[in-house]
Amino acid sequence: MNVFVIGIGLIGGSMAKDIKRLNPNATIFGIDNNPAHLEEALALNLIDNTSNYDHLDSADVVIVSIPVNAMLNELPSILDRVNEDCVVLDAGSTKATLCKRLDDHPKRRNFLACHPISGTEFSGPSAAVDGLFQGKTLIICEVEKTAFKLQEKALELYQQLGMRIRYMNPEAHDKHIAYVSHLSHISSFMLGKTVIEKEKNERDIFDMAGSGFESTVRLAKSSPAMWTPIFEQNKENVVETLNEYIQNLEAFRHLLLQDDYDGIYNEMNNTNKIKEILKGIPLNK
Amino acid sequence: MNVFVIGIGLIGGSMAKDIKRLNPNATIFGIDNNPAHLEEALALNLIDNTSNYDHLDSADVVIVSIPVNAMLNELPSILDRVNEDCVVLDAGSTKATLCKRLDDHPKRRNFLACHPISGTEFSGPSAAVDGLFQGKTLIICEVEKTAFKLQEKALELYQQLGMRIRYMNPEAHDKHIAYVSHLSHISSFMLGKTVIEKEKNERDIFDMAGSGFESTVRLAKSSPAMWTPIFEQNKENVVETLNEYIQNLEAFRHLLLQDDYDGIYNEMNNTNKIKEILKGIPLNK
Repeated sequence: MNVFVIGIGLIGGSMAKDIKRLNPNATIFGIDNNPAHLEEALALNLIDNTSNYDHLDSADVVIVSIPVNAMLNELPSILDRVNEDCVVLDAGSTKATLCKRLDDHPKRRNFLACHPISGTEFSGPSAAVDGLFQGKTLIICEVEKTAFKLQEKALELYQQLGMRIRYMNPEAHDKHIAYVSHLSHISSFMLGKTVIEKEKNERDIFDMAGSGFESTVRLAKSSPAMWTPIFEQNKENVVETLNEYIQNLEAFRHLLLQDDYDGIYNEMNNTNKIKEILKGIPLNK
Repeated sequence: MNVFVIGIGLIGGSMAKDIKRLNPNATIFGIDNNPAHLEEALALNLIDNTSNYDHLDSADVVIVSIPVNAMLNELPSILDRVNEDCVVLDAGSTKATLCKRLDDHPKRRNFLACHPISGTEFSGPSAAVDGLFQGKTLIICEVEKTAFKLQEKALELYQQLGMRIRYMNPEAHDKHIAYVSHLSHISSFMLGKTVIEKEKNERDIFDMAGSGFESTVRLAKSSPAMWTPIFEQNKENVVETLNEYIQNLEAFRHLLLQDDYDGIYNEMNNTNKIKEILKGIPLNK
């Protein structure tokens, strides 16, 4: 089995690692526009060989894990080059723009639109880890547009990785993921910014930060190159979540300014039910 | 050594656990206005006996770990009852109001104002864990107002627990802790609220939430009874941090609405330096 991974970073590298471990007969080919990443991926044994688009016709599976803006340009060329039994999988955090872009592609049936809800705040080949996808959710969009045989091939692979599969349409995906993922990144980046700005002349102050602070700003370590095009492609939904988040923060501030501490207690008490919700989320080990 | 722990929850219970393990000759007495918590603390072996204020004159060390509003009423009565060789330690997240309240107390020299920067999002006796304070920061305020001998006794205890000790004045403590702790809690609670409100009719949607979301809303599990009086006592500083946070979120939204993706990239890229800052934070294991 020839598996091509285009974009050997956290996601592509972790998939390569799992696929190699679980399929001793798989050969992993890496393609990346950053030569240093390819070298690192070879050294880390994430891939068996480097390759390029000219060899894509020999691929059985292609995994595309690159920023979502690059995805729009690269996926049509990738699809142009694969054979008819090859399935092309993406791993992007936005789905509507990409699905629209590929809708008329003559090889649309070779593509399966995927979003694995898994990752860490780190990036690059060295961020790749074993078992990253175990127990995590995979969202698949427009499954009916993929050839039946190729759906099967992809599902087999994702089941091997241990993923829980859910089907959605691209618009619903983008709307909901804005709340449970994209907004979290903005809240975290802006929290980090607020504290860094305030405390820039007070280095010692970070001695006062504990694991609670670390947890809430963890996502502010994420890659700007990956996240900028996500916010661009999901602008409308993201702005809506931001409006609601800012309104809720303003309402909390208003309660404080009015000394309405019963109101503040209730706000927090009502939100405590997040405990029950979080119980269902599979965490990184 | 007779150690009295007033308020047997996450912090008091964890201290009790460590002190017992490290000092086989210590007897731990628990006082709590919730009888169920006292029973639970006995069953969990966090304390050796329950007790009450009438026996505080036999205490060598008193640890007060109750909500910061209760602290203002209880600490004067506690100090009234202790002997002159007893040191009374608190664990509150705000320091200025309490220090002011105790400033004229005839036994002010028996009190050491402390804030251990450690904890989890859980509460109650069952949340108590071993080694919670290992490697964490302890802020001590107005150390000069505590009797020399009692400073020593307290430092010995905190060093046993493995804490890194820092000295600050209460006003500086409250100002900076608003940024690195209090604001994180509000950002997390309001993020949880925004998502719960939006998704109340869409339970399946939490299947889409990953470990990134879990991390940013973790603090929204925290106890409202503990946090409401913290926000009340530190209102002025907290409102200031909230103003700045909301401004930063609005600026980010403005960049999005203007399609200024270079600007958005730069915002995130500049905040990535949080990586270096976080390296210095000791985490819970």
